[in-house]
Amino acid sequence: MDVTPGTAMTNDMQASASSVTRFVGHEAEVQGDLLPVEEPLQIRLAGEDVVVTMRTPGHDEELAAGFLFTEGIIAGKTHIESIVHCPDDANGGAPSPNVVNVTPTDRSLLDPARWQRNMFASSSCGVCGKISIEQVRMGRLYHPMQEKLSVDLETLYSLPGKIRQAQTGFEQTGGLHAAALFTPDGHLLVLREDVGRHNAVDKVIGHALIEGLLPLDNHVLVVTSRASFEIVQKALAAGVRVMATISAPTSLAVEMAQEGGITLVAFLRDRRCNVYAGAL
Amino acid sequence: MDVTPGTAMTNDMQASASSVTRFVGHEAEVQGDLLPVEEPLQIRLAGEDVVVTMRTPGHDEELAAGFLFTEGIIAGKTHIESIVHCPDDANGGAPSPNVVNVTPTDRSLLDPARWQRNMFASSSCGVCGKISIEQVRMGRLYHPMQEKLSVDLETLYSLPGKIRQAQTGFEQTGGLHAAALFTPDGHLLVLREDVGRHNAVDKVIGHALIEGLLPLDNHVLVVTSRASFEIVQKALAAGVRVMATISAPTSLAVEMAQEGGITLVAFLRDRRCNVYAGAL
Repeated sequence: MDVTPGTAMTNDMQASASSVTRFVGHEAEVQGDLLPVEEPLQIRLAGEDVVVTMRTPGHDEELAAGFLFTEGIIAGKTHIESIVHCPDDANGGAPSPNVVNVTPTDRSLLDPARWQRNMFASSSCGVCGKISIEQVRMGRLYHPMQEKLSVDLETLYSLPGKIRQAQTGFEQTGGLHAAALFTPDGHLLVLREDVGRHNAVDKVIGHALIEGLLPLDNHVLVVTSRASFEIVQKALAAGVRVMATISAPTSLAVEMAQEGGITLVAFLRDRRCNVYAGAL
Repeated sequence: MDVTPGTAMTNDMQASASSVTRFVGHEAEVQGDLLPVEEPLQIRLAGEDVVVTMRTPGHDEELAAGFLFTEGIIAGKTHIESIVHCPDDANGGAPSPNVVNVTPTDRSLLDPARWQRNMFASSSCGVCGKISIEQVRMGRLYHPMQEKLSVDLETLYSLPGKIRQAQTGFEQTGGLHAAALFTPDGHLLVLREDVGRHNAVDKVIGHALIEGLLPLDNHVLVVTSRASFEIVQKALAAGVRVMATISAPTSLAVEMAQEGGITLVAFLRDRRCNVYAGAL
């Protein structure tokens, strides 16, 4: 697989400089400030538009791979021939910072139903009143985890600190979500930041896909954002067995984690945590 | 306009009971817990599917109205005949908790281009490399604000406390975003909570639409979540002149606020704030 990173300009552009009037009580001062960067990324598959996501530039190839994989549109690394920023004709063919194209090794391996379904914001549930968790399971099918993965409580408690240290973008801007992948003994493998929490998870999973680490059944996924249905779904798609969030889970996230056999830890901070599904 | 709220069961169901294993250091205890509820809502217009959004049940009619308005699909209150939860045939015709239909007064008043465009998750930018802020401006067109709205600094500092008091769902679950509408002298008009920050804003704007308060050019919109591009776009669509967030803004949110002539305040907490666009 040929993965061509974007230009240095577009990669890792997490923070942009801005001017701000800062009020403390009634004192005002104009100062420089760093903002988390948010820009649209168009993801294409075989030259066709799949989605536009509002993301923080950087690791766009991972984001594209992770998105297409967790949405069930591509099945794995061997189905990807290349991921490149499209050439921008208006700019002498230089890589376009906000459009990325994934070329499949074999178009016939793509599931057109999933691909097409993803093209619509609306999932046509068909029958009024029938809409349920089933209809929003747009992603990759998964199999309930058979074996458990044990993580030591002390190891778990050490993870938020390791994330904080690696979160350079949040440090600068106070406005980026992070997702990180750890070994069961607490070694940080990869951390990605993004204005969109789903993007941060897709980048981590895309990284794992490109590096040949899938399925993540011997890894711990930690996110700084709330664990929603969508985040648990992505974790399940990647085969994660233990996931944790510094923040809260939603009702549907817990339901899905229980059903999928994934251990879901939340409010992981200050040597405390809540286990909502599975066991440590 | 006929707005029929859902059943008591589905309205205001912000928190659901769950069982959790709570670890404090190495002590574990199984306890009851309340989770923020996340469920899919299918929004239909004239019986046709428009979008499925993952939301916290309650005020679904406001959410539907606000979504369709801020996306530019319906132009205002007079274009809506009714908003009702669809009857669920499988359940004796009782209101379906997760499907809501908006009946327009006159189908010909709907802009099919916007409606249809919204049906696709993919905005077809057409030319590779041309994608930009223009392409993601899917929402209602707006006109830059002409007049300024002044808000007293002490009034502004009082708003986070008023929000916290009214945030019953967050109080219970620690996992719900809030959006609130205030008068310029700090009187709380409406507050809505949701697992999705865009949904909370749509509910508030939908409430304003149903109550005939639009445009919100003499109101202050406050959100607890990050101010992203999407949130500022919704505020602009509703004619908001001053908006504030307890949290951070993104680069594109600031750019859009500056361009739209809206005052954007962020990190509003502890008698401090940053003004990123416009002036107080």
